[in-house]
Amino acid sequence: MALKTISAKAAAALDKDLMSTGAFSIDQLMELAGLSVSQVVYRVHPIQKGHRILVAVGPGNNGGDGLVAARHLRHYGYQPTIYYPKRSKNDLYQRLAKQLEDLEVPFVDDFPAALESTDHVVDAIFGFSFSGEVREPFPAVIQAMAKTKIPVTSVDAPSSWNIEEGPPKSGVGSSFYPDVLVSLTAPKPLVKYFKGRHFIGGRFVTPAIAKKYDFDLPAYEGIDQVVEVGPNGQKL
Amino acid sequence: MALKTISAKAAAALDKDLMSTGAFSIDQLMELAGLSVSQVVYRVHPIQKGHRILVAVGPGNNGGDGLVAARHLRHYGYQPTIYYPKRSKNDLYQRLAKQLEDLEVPFVDDFPAALESTDHVVDAIFGFSFSGEVREPFPAVIQAMAKTKIPVTSVDAPSSWNIEEGPPKSGVGSSFYPDVLVSLTAPKPLVKYFKGRHFIGGRFVTPAIAKKYDFDLPAYEGIDQVVEVGPNGQKL
Repeated sequence: MALKTISAKAAAALDKDLMSTGAFSIDQLMELAGLSVSQVVYRVHPIQKGHRILVAVGPGNNGGDGLVAARHLRHYGYQPTIYYPKRSKNDLYQRLAKQLEDLEVPFVDDFPAALESTDHVVDAIFGFSFSGEVREPFPAVIQAMAKTKIPVTSVDAPSSWNIEEGPPKSGVGSSFYPDVLVSLTAPKPLVKYFKGRHFIGGRFVTPAIAKKYDFDLPAYEGIDQVVEVGPNGQKL
Repeated sequence: MALKTISAKAAAALDKDLMSTGAFSIDQLMELAGLSVSQVVYRVHPIQKGHRILVAVGPGNNGGDGLVAARHLRHYGYQPTIYYPKRSKNDLYQRLAKQLEDLEVPFVDDFPAALESTDHVVDAIFGFSFSGEVREPFPAVIQAMAKTKIPVTSVDAPSSWNIEEGPPKSGVGSSFYPDVLVSLTAPKPLVKYFKGRHFIGGRFVTPAIAKKYDFDLPAYEGIDQVVEVGPNGQKL
């Protein structure tokens, strides 16, 4: 039996609930989401397999999760590199970037070049609020992630995929199948098309919220912030 | 060789640095500090030893760390109970309390009664900014923690201890020796008088900050947010 999925619309409403009646700040939620992502990378790509991690950061919340994950990975001993071409003026994202600069994490402009000298890629470009066309400069980045043999971990959604309908039928992203996916709070319908290792993160959802949005809290173990499930959300 | 300690004054300046030039929000830092505390409790008091955790929460940041720790412990499967007699009007603390209420974590008024039906106590009453006299209603709470045979984990400092000089020579707290201490960012001078299991938490300090305040970053392992050291900060 697979975990229930939540639509893009429900995921947006859930986030809004967490930050209004749930009383969470976005700083808290992003810290815990990014921590989840860092724990997945640690699990699927132990540092002995190579410590270089390239994080592709988009302009919104998905990118913020990537910035937080990169910081934790740096503390674990990895060497992250950040590709962040569309820097937000939002105060939170600027602070998350500064926290990385203070750890001497490099920011680079040339994604294909950076891909030549990394061991793992984190795709934190677009999340559940993505729809429509992939805007510049991201088409080439997604094409490069589609082609590379280096393993890619996507945050919440493979960037460019339609949240409900999965990979685009043609064009940018149609051949992008990341190796690993971290679904935050609950899987989105696109997991039906996903084929790699799949984790759930975001261990802050209350039973009441899960009930309201009609999904099951996954069976996290111990102090883990993530739990592995089947590619399409099956319980393992 | 023991880890270097930092004075109360240095700890306050360090926090200020983290939140100004370091670009951290207090929400982020408190989330990570509380997470550290929850990981220590999980390690020293596995859930099989009893799932009931009484958290004594003071009016300031130390209390906030306790509220965050309680939430994570609830997610791990423990049943925390909160004693929080001096509720702050500060928005952050109010939100942290609401997050616990949404998980149906009970708040109680009678500390000695609550102590009768718990398996472990978290002392999050006072931290490094404490000095002078213990104010009401906390003297009786500290006396109860001093007397009980139930294990107590203190956050950053055994409440009532002088940060530089350790346990008071007489009166409230003079016989309070908690079983476990979680030093946040770096040990304070009081660890010279501490006799129990000792952990360092707060895996967000940059090498530059550690250098500025003249202490060593502890050797965290894997994805752990805490590392055990000797009672007085010796490397294990």
